[in-house]
Amino acid sequence: MSEPKNAFYAQSGGVTAVINASACGVIETARRHPDKIGKVYAGRNGIIGALLEDLIDTSQESDEAIAALRHTPSGAFGSCRYKLKSLEENRRQYERLMEVFKAHNIGYFFYNGGGDSADTCHKVSQLSERMGFPIQAIHVPKTVDNDLPITDNCPGFGSVAKYIAVSTLEASFDVRSMAKTSTKIFVIEVMGRHAGWIAAAGGLVADQGIPVVVLFPEVEFDKERFLARVRQNVEKYDYCTVVVSEGAKWPDGKFLAEQGTRDAFGHAQLGGAAPVVANMIKDALGYKFHWAVADYLQRAARHLASKTDVEQAYAMGKAAVEFALEGANAIMPTIVRTSSDPYRWEVGQAPLSEVANVEKFMPKDFITDDGFGITDACREYLYPLIRGEDYPPYGDNGFPRYVTLKNAPVPKILGTDFEL
Amino acid sequence: MSEPKNAFYAQSGGVTAVINASACGVIETARRHPDKIGKVYAGRNGIIGALLEDLIDTSQESDEAIAALRHTPSGAFGSCRYKLKSLEENRRQYERLMEVFKAHNIGYFFYNGGGDSADTCHKVSQLSERMGFPIQAIHVPKTVDNDLPITDNCPGFGSVAKYIAVSTLEASFDVRSMAKTSTKIFVIEVMGRHAGWIAAAGGLVADQGIPVVVLFPEVEFDKERFLARVRQNVEKYDYCTVVVSEGAKWPDGKFLAEQGTRDAFGHAQLGGAAPVVANMIKDALGYKFHWAVADYLQRAARHLASKTDVEQAYAMGKAAVEFALEGANAIMPTIVRTSSDPYRWEVGQAPLSEVANVEKFMPKDFITDDGFGITDACREYLYPLIRGEDYPPYGDNGFPRYVTLKNAPVPKILGTDFEL
Repeated sequence: MSEPKNAFYAQSGGVTAVINASACGVIETARRHPDKIGKVYAGRNGIIGALLEDLIDTSQESDEAIAALRHTPSGAFGSCRYKLKSLEENRRQYERLMEVFKAHNIGYFFYNGGGDSADTCHKVSQLSERMGFPIQAIHVPKTVDNDLPITDNCPGFGSVAKYIAVSTLEASFDVRSMAKTSTKIFVIEVMGRHAGWIAAAGGLVADQGIPVVVLFPEVEFDKERFLARVRQNVEKYDYCTVVVSEGAKWPDGKFLAEQGTRDAFGHAQLGGAAPVVANMIKDALGYKFHWAVADYLQRAARHLASKTDVEQAYAMGKAAVEFALEGANAIMPTIVRTSSDPYRWEVGQAPLSEVANVEKFMPKDFITDDGFGITDACREYLYPLIRGEDYPPYGDNGFPRYVTLKNAPVPKILGTDFEL
Repeated sequence: MSEPKNAFYAQSGGVTAVINASACGVIETARRHPDKIGKVYAGRNGIIGALLEDLIDTSQESDEAIAALRHTPSGAFGSCRYKLKSLEENRRQYERLMEVFKAHNIGYFFYNGGGDSADTCHKVSQLSERMGFPIQAIHVPKTVDNDLPITDNCPGFGSVAKYIAVSTLEASFDVRSMAKTSTKIFVIEVMGRHAGWIAAAGGLVADQGIPVVVLFPEVEFDKERFLARVRQNVEKYDYCTVVVSEGAKWPDGKFLAEQGTRDAFGHAQLGGAAPVVANMIKDALGYKFHWAVADYLQRAARHLASKTDVEQAYAMGKAAVEFALEGANAIMPTIVRTSSDPYRWEVGQAPLSEVANVEKFMPKDFITDDGFGITDACREYLYPLIRGEDYPPYGDNGFPRYVTLKNAPVPKILGTDFEL
C-alpha cells in the first residue's frame, strides 16, 4: 500500500477571530486519520507559501498547541492578500502550485478563505485533474463580510457581530449616563465596505432600549433625513447612538470617509466615516460627541467570540477533511440553518462552481423602510449567530493564552526560485 | 430613638466599567444596616440631581437589580460633568445642597468620582458642619485616568488597562498575520489626555513578543526618532504596533490629534491621534496601515473587566459605608498595595484634605529611557491590576444581562426651582 498523501492547508485574505478554529478542525481531524492523510503542511502566509515552496510542518506542533488554535485569533500560519490571476493570464502560477504539491505528495488542498479563494480552490481542482495529478480541493469558508453564497452564514462573522453588538450597547450605556451635561452622540464605525451585515449587528441594540441610527452601505446617505432622525432621538431620549458602516456612501457613490479632508499641508487625508459623521452632527445640531473606529479590534476580538461562531468554524474545518476522506472534490462545506427558534443547523456542502465569484448581499427586507434600522427578519437571522460565549483561557498575567506556533519549515524539495 | 439618617450617593464625571460595582457596594452595605442608614437616595445625573432635588429612591430596586449593578458598566443613575464653583464664587450652590440634604434627612454623602468630586465632597463636609447640619462626606474613588493620590490605583483603571492590553494583543496578532502582503502597521489610540497610564497598559504586549512603540503624553513627540523606530521594527519583524495616547504632544505642546486637519470646506476638523500617526508613517515609509480609536469602547467594556478592578471597586463602595458607620468623615477609602508578587492589597483611608485637587502622575521610571516603552517597575505595577476575569452573565440573545434600573423619583419636599 502506498504512503498516504499529505494535505496542504492555507489561510487567505483578512483573518478573523475564529479562522484558527477552522485550522484546528482541519488538523485535529486529519490527525485522527493517519492511514489516509500523511502530514498537514500549511502555507506560510497563505497561498504564497505554496508558490514559494515555503511550507510549514504542522506535525511538529504538539496536540496542545493545535488545540489552542481553537481559541487563538488571527491567522496562525500567516495569511495574504494575493489573488491568483486567471488561468489564461498566468498559467505559470498554477503550474507552479502543481509542481510544489507534487513534490510534497499533496493530495488534499484545504483553502480557508472568502470568495476569491473559493475560485482559486476550484481552479486547483480542475487543473490538477487535467495535469494528471488529481488533488481533492476543498474550500473552508471564512469571512467577516458574510458574503459567501449558499452557506447560511460565514465563520468569522458571528464573532464580529457579537463584538459590535455588545460594544455598541456598552458605549451606548456610557453616553446615556453622560448625556445630561456632556456627550449626547456616540458614533461607532464598523467594517463592511460592500455590505451592511456588521452594521446590522450594531442595530440589535435597539432591542435593548437604545436609540440607534444605522448607516448601511446599501442605503444612499441622506444628510437631512439623517440629521432629523438624530435630533428626534436626542429630543426624546437625550442621546443617540450612530452605527456607521465604513462603506456608507453619498448619493454620488463617494464614501463618507473620503469627503476630501486635507491636512495642514493640503494633502488628502484618509479619515474615517465616524469622525465625518460626528462632526457633521456637531456642526448642524451642536451636540457634543464621541466617536470610535473599531477596525481590527472587531475582527480580532477572540476574547468575546460567539460560541455559535467558534463551533461552526471548527465544524467547517472538520467537515472539509471528512468530506475529503469520503472522496469529495471541488466543494465547500456549508452551514445549513434548519430552524431559527430554537436555532438548529447542520453541515451541508456546495459545489465550488456555484460558490466561486458569487457574492451574497444582505436581503432588502433586512433593512427598515426608513433605511436606518433592521427588521424582524434580520433579527431572527442575527440572534442565533451571536449567541453563546466561548472564552479563551487566561494566564496569571491577565492576558489570554493565545498560542504562537513554532511554524517549522518543511525542507524544500524543489528549491527553485519563483517570482510572485 | 430617632429615625436613622438617609444616605445620598452620586456618580461624577466620566463613567467606567465598574463605577456601578462601587454603587453596588454602597447600597448593599447600607441595606445591611437599616438601623443606622435609612434609605439610599441617588442623585439623578450626579450632583445635579441634588441641586435640582431630583433624587432617585434606590429602595425601590430589588436586591437582584442592585446586585446586577456589579456587572453593569456606565453610571446607572446618570453622571455629570459639572464642577461646583468655589465657595466664594457660588456659595448659593452649597447652601442649596444643604437645604436639599436637610429636607431629605441626609446624614451621609457618598460621592463617587475623581479629583474634582473629592474636592466637592470635602467642602460638603466642612460646610455642613458650619451650617449646623453635619453630614458625613465620604469620597468613593473612581477614574480611568488613575490620577488620584495616595490610593495605589483607582477603580476603573484596571479594566481599561486590561481591555487595551488584550485588544492591542489581538490586533497585533492580526497585523502579524497580514504583514507579508498587506498591512504592516497597526495604530491604536487610547485615552489619557494628561497621563500615559492607559497607553502603558498597551505597552504590556511587548511581553507577548509584539514589536510595539508607545507614544506617551509625558514624552515630547520626536517624529524622526519615532519613524526610525517603526522602520526598525518592520525591518526586523515585518510589522509594528503603535499605541498612541490621545494626549501625545508635539514639542510645542500641541496635541498630535490637532495638527490642523481641515475638511473640504476648510473647517478645522477634529481628528484623532491615530489617523495622524498612521498617515505620517505611510507618507514617510510607505507601509500599509490600519488604525483604531477605542474611545468609549475602552472605558465601557465591562465584558472584559479585570477581576481585581471589579473587586476593588466594590470594596471601595463597601468600605465607604463601613467607615461612615464608624463615624468617619471627609475621607476616601484607598487601595493599599502590600505586595506585588504575590499581589496583596487592603483597604486604607486618606483624609480628603490630602486628596482634593492633587493629581498623581505616572512615575518617570515607568517609561523607558528611549521614551517608547515601559519599564519593569511599570510592569510590576500593572500586571496585578489586569489580572483575573469577571464576566457578566449573558442572555439567550447573546447580550450581557446589564441592568437598567427603574430610577423612581423621591417625592420632592422643597419643590423650589434652582438654576444650575
